[in-house]
Amino acid sequence: MKSSLDDYLKKAVSQVDAAMDGFLPLKEERPGSIHEAMRYCVFAGGKRLRPILSLAAAEACGGKRKHALPAACAVELMHTYSLVHDDLPSMDNDDLRRGRPTCHKVYGEGMAVLCGDALLTEAFIVLCHAKSRKRYSVGDMVVELSLTGGSRKLIGGQVLDLEGEGKKLSKDDLVRIHEAKTAALLTASLRLGAMSANAKPRQLAALTKFGHALGLAFQIVDDILDVTQTTENLGKTAGKDQIVEKSTYPSVLGLDESRKEAARLTAEAMGALDIFGEEADPLRKIAGWMLEREY
Amino acid sequence: MKSSLDDYLKKAVSQVDAAMDGFLPLKEERPGSIHEAMRYCVFAGGKRLRPILSLAAAEACGGKRKHALPAACAVELMHTYSLVHDDLPSMDNDDLRRGRPTCHKVYGEGMAVLCGDALLTEAFIVLCHAKSRKRYSVGDMVVELSLTGGSRKLIGGQVLDLEGEGKKLSKDDLVRIHEAKTAALLTASLRLGAMSANAKPRQLAALTKFGHALGLAFQIVDDILDVTQTTENLGKTAGKDQIVEKSTYPSVLGLDESRKEAARLTAEAMGALDIFGEEADPLRKIAGWMLEREY
Repeated sequence: MKSSLDDYLKKAVSQVDAAMDGFLPLKEERPGSIHEAMRYCVFAGGKRLRPILSLAAAEACGGKRKHALPAACAVELMHTYSLVHDDLPSMDNDDLRRGRPTCHKVYGEGMAVLCGDALLTEAFIVLCHAKSRKRYSVGDMVVELSLTGGSRKLIGGQVLDLEGEGKKLSKDDLVRIHEAKTAALLTASLRLGAMSANAKPRQLAALTKFGHALGLAFQIVDDILDVTQTTENLGKTAGKDQIVEKSTYPSVLGLDESRKEAARLTAEAMGALDIFGEEADPLRKIAGWMLEREY
Repeated sequence: MKSSLDDYLKKAVSQVDAAMDGFLPLKEERPGSIHEAMRYCVFAGGKRLRPILSLAAAEACGGKRKHALPAACAVELMHTYSLVHDDLPSMDNDDLRRGRPTCHKVYGEGMAVLCGDALLTEAFIVLCHAKSRKRYSVGDMVVELSLTGGSRKLIGGQVLDLEGEGKKLSKDDLVRIHEAKTAALLTASLRLGAMSANAKPRQLAALTKFGHALGLAFQIVDDILDVTQTTENLGKTAGKDQIVEKSTYPSVLGLDESRKEAARLTAEAMGALDIFGEEADPLRKIAGWMLEREY
């Protein structure tokens, strides 16, 4: 079971990385500096969670993984841009990401702003390599990605996060931030993969529920790990939330309650997949893997 | 002649502003801070050159102006985002834009990064309000806008610009920067307006030539104005190019040669419109107005 998941993940990552390498401008293309920076950020050894969800969602809906590759790469590019900008000195001011110096530490702050901009724009360039299907046009997919990335979701979540520093937030506030900052893009990753596979509306609806619960559970686990793990284990600065006085699940609900809430949401996520047969087994295993990290 | 152009511009600006007001999230939508910042940057009294070009291009191709409004607002949003990020302390470090304090002076640097990100993402949200036409799908329009905004064009131009500071550039280098930084988005503004009007391929080709020459001429005029005008007249910091030792047409070719080059490109631009009849008269007048500023 464990080893078949490992094989699945390994194969999916290599498919995504090969597709990404083909989509991204070469370092040799002018201006080489920005293309080098983009590739530094994209090929930094991330877990590729979001694109893997896209591929597995396409499979769950009876499609082929390869049809979901443009969508998969697009969501990963959007995720990567958001990390590059969130790490900037004027935002979270982080020096370390995925165990390596952050973009602005290597290329300077101005270039990191431009690199993030370029990765965000590239997400739309790459998404347009998707094929229109009977139920969903490329335009529909662009609507999905742009609304997810916009000021009401991904960017709005980062704004609420920044504005919440040093304040005591309620559980409702936290849920709102996590929905916008984390669950929205995980859900869009699933939905875009499913749209690439011409998913039926009820399949899309089930994946939306799954993504929402999975996203919230995943963020709670992340918050817990920030408290309980070391910088070395995480590949990013541990204990960061406490330093900037950020309200998190553990700080608001305590560790025990946070673990219970993560378990409840995990069950909710798994339940949402009940309409699928064994074609969703990869998705089930991936969810298990995402949520059963040591915490 | 002059007054009919004034009327045309006034009406086009008010159409674009009303559409933009309808597209952008309200300040009342959460998080209000980012939506306030977005509206501060968009409604800052810009000339709306790019969206006006979209509307006039749609008309030149026999379409209605209102069909080009999503494309027009999308290019203006992309232009506005690029100004917000270019003005950041880590880039051009400018305090003044369109006669008002820049975004980061009012809302802080982190918020200005996020505001630019949100405006860029919003450009794609808004563009998806365009209708697919017989010859062009919404997906085709997204390809046009994303390639124009990407690392090979708009962002690449800003990279070359930053990397060129303090260096003596050749005329070819300058042309390459201006093509990427200025001409590409002006051309895309025209093309997206034309695509919204289901333009014939030869109309699209003519507008592409027009946009390229117009864009280069426009940038030369801008460089000349930076030398010859005051900050008060420009609404942005004058003499900025000299301070950061930026190579410009006047510094590379001298003022006289620069004026001659602008005139040559203006003639080239006007010639490209010869395939159109009087339906392109607004476009001709707008080009005259853009290039015959006092310089």
